[in-house]
Amino acid sequence: MAHKVVIVGAGFGGLSAAKALAGQKNLDVTIIDKRNHHLFQPLLYQVATAALSPADIATPIRAELTDKKNIQVLMAQVDGVNLKERTVSAGGEKHGYDYLILACGSSHSYFGHDEWETFAPGLKTLEQATEIRRRILLSFELAEKEKNPEKRKALMSFAIIGAGPTGVELAGSIAEIARVTFKKDFRNIDTLQSEVYLVEAGPRILSSFEEKLSKLAHTDLTNMGVNILCGAKVTAVDSEGLSFGDKKLASKTIIWAAGVAPSSLGTKLGVEVDRGGRVIVRSDWSLPTHKEVFIIGDMSSFTENGRPLPALAPVALQGGRFVARQILRDLNNKPREHFKYLDKGQMATIGRKKAILQFGSWKSSGFVAWIAWLLVHIYYLIGFKNKFFVLVSWSWSYLTFKKGARLIINKEWRD
Amino acid sequence: MAHKVVIVGAGFGGLSAAKALAGQKNLDVTIIDKRNHHLFQPLLYQVATAALSPADIATPIRAELTDKKNIQVLMAQVDGVNLKERTVSAGGEKHGYDYLILACGSSHSYFGHDEWETFAPGLKTLEQATEIRRRILLSFELAEKEKNPEKRKALMSFAIIGAGPTGVELAGSIAEIARVTFKKDFRNIDTLQSEVYLVEAGPRILSSFEEKLSKLAHTDLTNMGVNILCGAKVTAVDSEGLSFGDKKLASKTIIWAAGVAPSSLGTKLGVEVDRGGRVIVRSDWSLPTHKEVFIIGDMSSFTENGRPLPALAPVALQGGRFVARQILRDLNNKPREHFKYLDKGQMATIGRKKAILQFGSWKSSGFVAWIAWLLVHIYYLIGFKNKFFVLVSWSWSYLTFKKGARLIINKEWRD
Repeated sequence: MAHKVVIVGAGFGGLSAAKALAGQKNLDVTIIDKRNHHLFQPLLYQVATAALSPADIATPIRAELTDKKNIQVLMAQVDGVNLKERTVSAGGEKHGYDYLILACGSSHSYFGHDEWETFAPGLKTLEQATEIRRRILLSFELAEKEKNPEKRKALMSFAIIGAGPTGVELAGSIAEIARVTFKKDFRNIDTLQSEVYLVEAGPRILSSFEEKLSKLAHTDLTNMGVNILCGAKVTAVDSEGLSFGDKKLASKTIIWAAGVAPSSLGTKLGVEVDRGGRVIVRSDWSLPTHKEVFIIGDMSSFTENGRPLPALAPVALQGGRFVARQILRDLNNKPREHFKYLDKGQMATIGRKKAILQFGSWKSSGFVAWIAWLLVHIYYLIGFKNKFFVLVSWSWSYLTFKKGARLIINKEWRD
Repeated sequence: MAHKVVIVGAGFGGLSAAKALAGQKNLDVTIIDKRNHHLFQPLLYQVATAALSPADIATPIRAELTDKKNIQVLMAQVDGVNLKERTVSAGGEKHGYDYLILACGSSHSYFGHDEWETFAPGLKTLEQATEIRRRILLSFELAEKEKNPEKRKALMSFAIIGAGPTGVELAGSIAEIARVTFKKDFRNIDTLQSEVYLVEAGPRILSSFEEKLSKLAHTDLTNMGVNILCGAKVTAVDSEGLSFGDKKLASKTIIWAAGVAPSSLGTKLGVEVDRGGRVIVRSDWSLPTHKEVFIIGDMSSFTENGRPLPALAPVALQGGRFVARQILRDLNNKPREHFKYLDKGQMATIGRKKAILQFGSWKSSGFVAWIAWLLVHIYYLIGFKNKFFVLVSWSWSYLTFKKGARLIINKEWRD
């Protein structure tokens, strides 16, 4: 009889595991996700800043796996896992498994201030990206009509909290919208007067990069008109703006790019987790107490050389492929292997023709790094169509200085 | 001093009027729309059926008019017009005018049953299109999980009320999704068993076309698996389905493509309207009582040869350009002209390689009409980018039999 494999989550980790298990006749695979699409999160900030359409960076999970006859796709919310019973509860039903791969990713952490989310959405889903796009574009529209100079200033002030790659990319893109895309579009406001604030609690931006690159990015962003506030720990966020200690910053558009919290499914398992709530796994990504359960990607705490692996797409991708191989090894009575992360380095784009990239001791910045960034992202995008459309969208934006998806879509479909 | 022109609505009528008034130094033009984008409504059904992305058929009004220095764009809801004072109230402010062009289009009429809208959204905006897309795609996902055969059947039954061009295009596209796009994507359901119902109160579909073409389309749709129910006047719509007299049809996805109601701004003017609520205008599209006020497009009742002009894009486009010219003639002390509609014919697409088209006494159907339909729609789409992307999307879909925007986007951005 076929062995049952249940995969929860169709992000980089889950989808790569599923693909690696395709065509195995003795395996009956079910992949469960609450959404119908796999999302290429590294480009989500481009949807939030009106450069790409949601469909450009998403692909239907079903379409990706249509020819893989041993794989079934289920769109459902997973409510819990029973490790003893070996079942997953999803959409009111229990799904038994012989092997379980949990790859549910992460969402935002507001450090105990969940009430801030209303005023400062995070950027993890297409819904959040279109909401952020709506807020950014709408702010300029409201500023154009606003007569009160103080209110107008707050509408033309954009604050991004957290200066990791996403925060930096958002700040750069919003500065570009204000200074380039919108330059001639308004009559009552001068969009060059817009202010973009990048607010970081730590001492420098892009702290996961080497200091030299981080400084380069700092200079580039400053030249693009971004105000970088380091050592600024946010203490309050509301509809009028944000505070750090005594200082207040009036801003009607705030975006949260700071804390990351792993999926709560991990902490609910009742197994050991690290300080951040990520599940501690063995050298084959399995639970120390259950070798048939693998936890991969952002929700997993995998220690290599004494340090946990970062929450990056390559870690999830490699983890997914690795655990699929371990399942096949089990079935062939071969011993499990130890996972070894192949470091793909890291990169962040800052703006037109500007990026930084770090690969081991090799560093690059400026135009070369920017081209590398473009190529790597195109290469990893799933599907010919997405690759092609994103490439063409980027070429068009590069040549025309325009944004291709400048839409304010209301939340309510009724007029 | 410059004369003030206020245009309400940036659809085909309003935008073409604005463009025709661009560069006139003695004219100070304000165009007001509640959205930030001009929408190419003829292709909206393709967004609703996952073939195109919202940004493919929309263009920011500001970007369209960025170089027209005498034109100001205002994103605001218009609350009313005071014909005596010559002011328009929008967004809490009054805008005085010397000339007013009202081009607010139409929305759906539920014939006194507004409570049906919840269960059967219409298709006039991008918000409605993505909501319909969500419902269509989600129905298949829910059917895949549904064990009860009756409930599954209702989930796989799609009802479109109204068999004008939009209804026909929706029915054809949904049948295509079920029979072609989704053919191999599901494991528990056979999407070929889906039922698409096209429900029409009148005796035949596409009643604005000649009977011969309407019959051809009827045959084509039937061959594609669409169930056409003519003479079926809907008497109830709820969450379970719809009724026409004694007959019930269980369907979880219902789309309203029947009645059209002109913008209520027309009836609120206090001037003469026709039975459908459209404002009666003179041969120059102006109000009989106020020659400085023009009403164009779907909200206007323009009688030519004893019959009102249809609510079609070419009528609005030509009307917009015409009234702009009349304003310029006034300023040059030339007499007003009489509008003459240049009939561009009408067309409807039914499916892959199938369309009908009627131009005066000239008729065409099948592949030739389909190619003509494609070319005309590409030609009229605004902007190089939209033309190019839609053309490429269509080519890709044609070659791969896939839909490029199969996204279920939730209504709430919070998880």
